[in-house]
Amino acid sequence: MSARPLILVTNDDGITAGGIAALVTVAREFGDVLVVAPDSPQSAQGHAITISVPIFVRESDALGEDIEAYECSGTPVDCVKLAKSVLLDGRTPDLCLSGINHGSNAAINILYSGTLSAAMEASLEGIPSIGFSFLNYRADADFSVCLPYVRHLVDFVLANGMAEGSLYNVNIPDLPAGQIKGLKVCRQAEARWVEEYVKAEDPRGRPYYWLTGRFVNEDTRTDTDAYALEQGYVSLVPSLHDLTNHRALTSLQIIESGLQPEGVTYTDDAIEKKQQLEQF
Amino acid sequence: MSARPLILVTNDDGITAGGIAALVTVAREFGDVLVVAPDSPQSAQGHAITISVPIFVRESDALGEDIEAYECSGTPVDCVKLAKSVLLDGRTPDLCLSGINHGSNAAINILYSGTLSAAMEASLEGIPSIGFSFLNYRADADFSVCLPYVRHLVDFVLANGMAEGSLYNVNIPDLPAGQIKGLKVCRQAEARWVEEYVKAEDPRGRPYYWLTGRFVNEDTRTDTDAYALEQGYVSLVPSLHDLTNHRALTSLQIIESGLQPEGVTYTDDAIEKKQQLEQF
Repeated sequence: MSARPLILVTNDDGITAGGIAALVTVAREFGDVLVVAPDSPQSAQGHAITISVPIFVRESDALGEDIEAYECSGTPVDCVKLAKSVLLDGRTPDLCLSGINHGSNAAINILYSGTLSAAMEASLEGIPSIGFSFLNYRADADFSVCLPYVRHLVDFVLANGMAEGSLYNVNIPDLPAGQIKGLKVCRQAEARWVEEYVKAEDPRGRPYYWLTGRFVNEDTRTDTDAYALEQGYVSLVPSLHDLTNHRALTSLQIIESGLQPEGVTYTDDAIEKKQQLEQF
Repeated sequence: MSARPLILVTNDDGITAGGIAALVTVAREFGDVLVVAPDSPQSAQGHAITISVPIFVRESDALGEDIEAYECSGTPVDCVKLAKSVLLDGRTPDLCLSGINHGSNAAINILYSGTLSAAMEASLEGIPSIGFSFLNYRADADFSVCLPYVRHLVDFVLANGMAEGSLYNVNIPDLPAGQIKGLKVCRQAEARWVEEYVKAEDPRGRPYYWLTGRFVNEDTRTDTDAYALEQGYVSLVPSLHDLTNHRALTSLQIIESGLQPEGVTYTDDAIEKKQQLEQF
């Protein structure tokens, strides 16, 4: 057994992407590393998991022969599940890093992102987890500008831990190192996608739609991730997998008492039990 | 133009599933109905979207010739995006209903569920949205026990609206109507899946893993959806697409001031701008 931290690394762009190599570079400075990543790009997979077909897993030396690494035919969330149940062989990671994604996962993109869904899956298991994204979509993106921020956050989280059930969504602007102004802790912007479907016909005359779109930030607040990035900051949104709208819990209780719709009848036993349980 | 409400209906089990027919039965009592649903089962797709291949869309009479309905080769979230951008032809739905799913989407299953991700996608567009699930996995499930609750909630939301950015995650226990004790407004349980992978080899000798698992609720609180369902209630969790951990925003600001890692240098201009922006 090693006294060094154990760091699980994954992504959604696939095990050969440049961003995961950048994360591994930092992770091995701090601890032992296990990589489990998709064998092909899995962008926009969200929290999808593979249940109707089997998943193939192979050892990989894509990140160097001295790195324990596996590539898998499933989604990013599958990678984390497989790591936990099979490949970690009983070990518990101290930290999960996902990315570095090619392109922004700020604002509502956390919902669509395989990178962030993998981090969230790790958070479900109580593993402190950070998803990193770089606002540079080019295949040959130079991730070196990201490294000091990755290093700072890995150091911080290994030293201080993370609130249970939480994960950090970190986005890094596409600027030279000297022009990045620092790091901002932010809320998720209420931005959205305006879809533009290309409509055409396939060679057999079947009409099809192909998704494209524009990211639109109409959120005018200045404490959001989208705003921080526009201003040249690295954004960090502490995020949760508990989606409950806690503020609505009390006000919505009216919906319970209103429920005597036609067709629902209660047995005496049920009414008695309902009364007993009313206080919970 | 019609003065009746317009209700968008979708699901993840596919347009021929029994659950969506149940939703359409209720929806047409209240308003005009547009159905856009997957042409095949899309369970566990989470918030996945289709970007690397085109999406095929066809009119469908699976729900009766008098219902405007389309089947689509994409995910549940694709269905909502296509409805909004193309098939609604400029109309804005007053409500989106998704389901009724075969099987529970209580607790963290909201993250994996195509049914709930479709509802969440509608909420991103400001459309009040409800995802329904029935705790009965059988293909021949009788959804009639669900109808009074669907009716009650459609009526309630059309009359009262819904907090912006919110959606309701509604789960209905698999009990005879008379034994359901009522409706409870709940928080999302902190339950989780314990995966069990079946390991085997394909006909060519390649090892594979096939996902299965057990749902484990170790959350002992009595105000959760999982608890309400165990007690025989319909559960309703008001949910959000804003995943920000708002309580952590202030305490985490230490992470900003700690950021002077080796290798990050600030230009004078950047330092000045940083100071100017410090108050946001």
